[in-house]
Amino acid sequence: MNLPGLLRRYLPILDWGAKYTTKTLTNDLIVAGIVTIMLIPQSLAYALLAGLPPQVGLYASMAPLVLYAIFGTSRALAVGPVAVASLMTAAAAASVATQGTPEYLGATIALAAISGLLLLAMGLLKLGFLANFLSHPVISGFITASGIQIATGQLAPVLGIHAEGESFVALLKSMVPNLGHINAYTAVIGVASLAFLFWVRRGLKPLLRKLGLGERAADILAKVGPVVAIAVTTAAVWGLGLTEHGVKIVGTVPRGLPKLALPSFDVGLWTKLVAPALLISIVGYVESISVALTLAAKRRQRVDPDQELIALGMSNVGASVSGGFPVTGGFARSVVNFEAGAETPAAGAFTAIGIALATLFLTPLLFYLPNATLAATIIVAVLSLVNLSALKHTWHYSRADGAAMAATILLTLIEGVEAGLLAGVGLSIFLHLYRTSKPHVAVVGQLPGTMNFRNVNRYTVVTSPEILSLRVDASFYFPNARFIEEYINEAVADHPAVRHVILECPAVNTIDASALESLEAVNLRLKDGGITLHLSEVKGPIMDRLKRSHFLEDLTGKVHLTQYDAVSSINPELARRTLETGRAPQP
Amino acid sequence: MNLPGLLRRYLPILDWGAKYTTKTLTNDLIVAGIVTIMLIPQSLAYALLAGLPPQVGLYASMAPLVLYAIFGTSRALAVGPVAVASLMTAAAAASVATQGTPEYLGATIALAAISGLLLLAMGLLKLGFLANFLSHPVISGFITASGIQIATGQLAPVLGIHAEGESFVALLKSMVPNLGHINAYTAVIGVASLAFLFWVRRGLKPLLRKLGLGERAADILAKVGPVVAIAVTTAAVWGLGLTEHGVKIVGTVPRGLPKLALPSFDVGLWTKLVAPALLISIVGYVESISVALTLAAKRRQRVDPDQELIALGMSNVGASVSGGFPVTGGFARSVVNFEAGAETPAAGAFTAIGIALATLFLTPLLFYLPNATLAATIIVAVLSLVNLSALKHTWHYSRADGAAMAATILLTLIEGVEAGLLAGVGLSIFLHLYRTSKPHVAVVGQLPGTMNFRNVNRYTVVTSPEILSLRVDASFYFPNARFIEEYINEAVADHPAVRHVILECPAVNTIDASALESLEAVNLRLKDGGITLHLSEVKGPIMDRLKRSHFLEDLTGKVHLTQYDAVSSINPELARRTLETGRAPQP
Repeated sequence: MNLPGLLRRYLPILDWGAKYTTKTLTNDLIVAGIVTIMLIPQSLAYALLAGLPPQVGLYASMAPLVLYAIFGTSRALAVGPVAVASLMTAAAAASVATQGTPEYLGATIALAAISGLLLLAMGLLKLGFLANFLSHPVISGFITASGIQIATGQLAPVLGIHAEGESFVALLKSMVPNLGHINAYTAVIGVASLAFLFWVRRGLKPLLRKLGLGERAADILAKVGPVVAIAVTTAAVWGLGLTEHGVKIVGTVPRGLPKLALPSFDVGLWTKLVAPALLISIVGYVESISVALTLAAKRRQRVDPDQELIALGMSNVGASVSGGFPVTGGFARSVVNFEAGAETPAAGAFTAIGIALATLFLTPLLFYLPNATLAATIIVAVLSLVNLSALKHTWHYSRADGAAMAATILLTLIEGVEAGLLAGVGLSIFLHLYRTSKPHVAVVGQLPGTMNFRNVNRYTVVTSPEILSLRVDASFYFPNARFIEEYINEAVADHPAVRHVILECPAVNTIDASALESLEAVNLRLKDGGITLHLSEVKGPIMDRLKRSHFLEDLTGKVHLTQYDAVSSINPELARRTLETGRAPQP
Repeated sequence: MNLPGLLRRYLPILDWGAKYTTKTLTNDLIVAGIVTIMLIPQSLAYALLAGLPPQVGLYASMAPLVLYAIFGTSRALAVGPVAVASLMTAAAAASVATQGTPEYLGATIALAAISGLLLLAMGLLKLGFLANFLSHPVISGFITASGIQIATGQLAPVLGIHAEGESFVALLKSMVPNLGHINAYTAVIGVASLAFLFWVRRGLKPLLRKLGLGERAADILAKVGPVVAIAVTTAAVWGLGLTEHGVKIVGTVPRGLPKLALPSFDVGLWTKLVAPALLISIVGYVESISVALTLAAKRRQRVDPDQELIALGMSNVGASVSGGFPVTGGFARSVVNFEAGAETPAAGAFTAIGIALATLFLTPLLFYLPNATLAATIIVAVLSLVNLSALKHTWHYSRADGAAMAATILLTLIEGVEAGLLAGVGLSIFLHLYRTSKPHVAVVGQLPGTMNFRNVNRYTVVTSPEILSLRVDASFYFPNARFIEEYINEAVADHPAVRHVILECPAVNTIDASALESLEAVNLRLKDGGITLHLSEVKGPIMDRLKRSHFLEDLTGKVHLTQYDAVSSINPELARRTLETGRAPQP
């Protein structure tokens, strides 16, 4: 690829930027305004969730958005702090530093840097398939459990009590003894905010529709509803002097833009954070790409999964150098972005400018904002992530997937995010290998009147005692290589009259080195027992590969084009008569 | 299963024992004599290799053989200490205790106990497929590297120098500075033994054949050749008083049978040894089952892989309670057993009696046996395990398998047995998931004059701009679910005229929950873009499963029996004319 090609490949902005018009600009500016209003409280709340000062959430909502606008391929994806990644960030940072210390902030900055570099590397090396290790049931179970844990954790600020813990169970244990110390003022604000926000989510939109607003406008207004809760509770705390009654508030949010700085590179710290950063990256990427694909499909736009890794990588590097923490594409904000009509990623860049303006001029207004309100907005946001009925559906559809999902949920709730996620990934891979280790093998015979061969247990077919025809419904590779060896050994011991074994291979997409050795061993063992081994219907690429080994030379039988040819070569009379007369020849 | 059935299932001895005759007895007794002579030096040598006193090797060659005779299903398998398992035992025990201490012996006894219990559990729970995680290239690379490491390590006693290290590289580093301190007397014995043993292996059999011996007799005599080396060198050391010149000898081997005792159960110790014990068990099982299958096939006998786990489990439990170390079925001794004509597992039990007699009466004869001779027998035995040309063949056949094999060899040589094995297993699984994550997808069209559909890139076929027919040559499951989503998203963006997508599924053997969610997402996204999704040629079991989800109700298109039906339902004119006229209809 030449330089312009490379630039166009890695800088999608060159593509849409060239077609940018005043009309698109106006549109994107309006969208940016709406998203900014929605993003400010979210950014503050997720920073608190990650155990960070609120302004860090604002910092993480500027540079990443601009960088995504330059490198991203989705027109509507909005990046920034999200709930699950914030929770994972808190868990990882707490493992190396104490919340509230500069080391803790250093750890979250390092996490963003490592995540960014890992995502960039995955994008450049086209390793996006790593995200496949997270099966849908595992990610869904993980997000559900994380949602439960986040909601539980945020109940503490809503009620004005103390709680800490790395898992749902630990949080519960720490909260229950404190339930006697609920701060009534805080609880009133928190519970009222919760009730209001739930109503906004459920009841506001229908009301707005009744009042004559359009579908889209009602939708968007309902999504910026939290701002009202924030304004009202902030005013209440200020006006009624509730801080004197123990209501915790956001307090001083430093004005001004973040200072840009390279994250300090501490080998010991980075080594400890690589594994959690990888998990954060992959979970974030999976969430982000699925939102991006969904929104792109609605307008038949294209999303490039490898370029998305690069864009998210740059966004996280940006979050890191501007003093933030790991970010990714969020579902709720991207939908608002999309529904408000974002036409280009520029809307994201304008949103960043909106947040920057807020950081410069609006932070004094946030002084009296009660933490309880922010916690309430988090609870309402994350409860939509909790989907326990998915467990039922998944279990109903597939026991193995259901088990992986249940294990992920339980371990996340009991042991925390990293243990839960790793257990889920491990179990998925294990169950996958287990399933593929026992493929379906059918003994087949000739369907009278045809050249076709079918399972002897399902069809009335013609077989010969000297010929054993097996169809393996799977590729031959290491998880099942030994199974096939043992199956043939067993089948031959069961059928003493057998002189020829034919493997029908239409469903065999690969034969790896393990399977090749197994086939060689089977061939030799059958030879020792006076039996020839034949193959039939071997696909072209597999034949090419087999020719690179000695197998075809050593094979006691032949490779036949079709199963009919194979049987014909051994017992032409039987094959022909079964084809012609439509029944087995009489002995 | 009723009690007799259960007994017969788990005690194969009831089966062959009932048919036992005096003729079989005579035969088995002769075999036992031959194998005993071969086994005594091997047992001593492998005990030294495992870092244990020589008598422990004899102990590990009694109880296990009797227990295998009761529980095993192979007629010819001979269990006992083997080279690779001994090396792995030494590595594991050295990680928790110092060689020569009672704790070290305690660790090897615990390893045998844990291995035994793990194998028993795997057998009873039918978890034999766990052994599949070790692909052939990985196990082959591992055995080659272990062979190199063992041979290198044994060069030290052959030359009378000191060496220690957990890997080939560490051994080399420790040996090279000592090369100046070679003990000449030891070296003469060692090198002469080596030369003699190599000659026995290569030249003795042809010589015996020339002298008129039969093939089988010559074979067996050549295999017991090491006894001659042992007798001659022992006599030389004794007669020439070489111990005064620094030649190391076996020394006092305690007479008498091992005392039976339960291994001490120390939670801390067992926890540390579980992982290495699992690796030893699986490597041992893989070696053992492949020997058993090979020998069974020669006589069309049956080997039950799950019962073999139980038999090896019992053997290791037996090794543990009689003060030994992990055992498994060995290749060389099983072949001798088989070729000498072992007809039942009783031959193994008689061998155990032979070893017991030797332990009771022959141990004084072993006093002057030089360690150098034992080391030479090990070197000659293990060099036959080294097969570097397999690496070349494997690489030639498959880059992925070759890479896994090379990684296993290199890491075993550099870092030791556990690191090498785990790296190989990890890499195999990783490469497997990588390959399956990018399945082959073909755009297909109708072959004129037929109802068949073929790849548009390989055949001249008829397609319609409004229909996109895709054939995915793989099952749909989590490693490739996202790939298929992205592929369809991309394909639809590339073909703006498309109104219908048909997935032809003849090669789809499973659809897991991840793939189901992906298909649901694809269906919804296509719907948003005004495109219907159809499936064709879905297999019966998959349809059954899909019916347990909402997918079929939500599907915008239909599930068609054949791809032809699918296209016909959308554009009957095109399908019919392509079938009838043998070419595409004119617009």
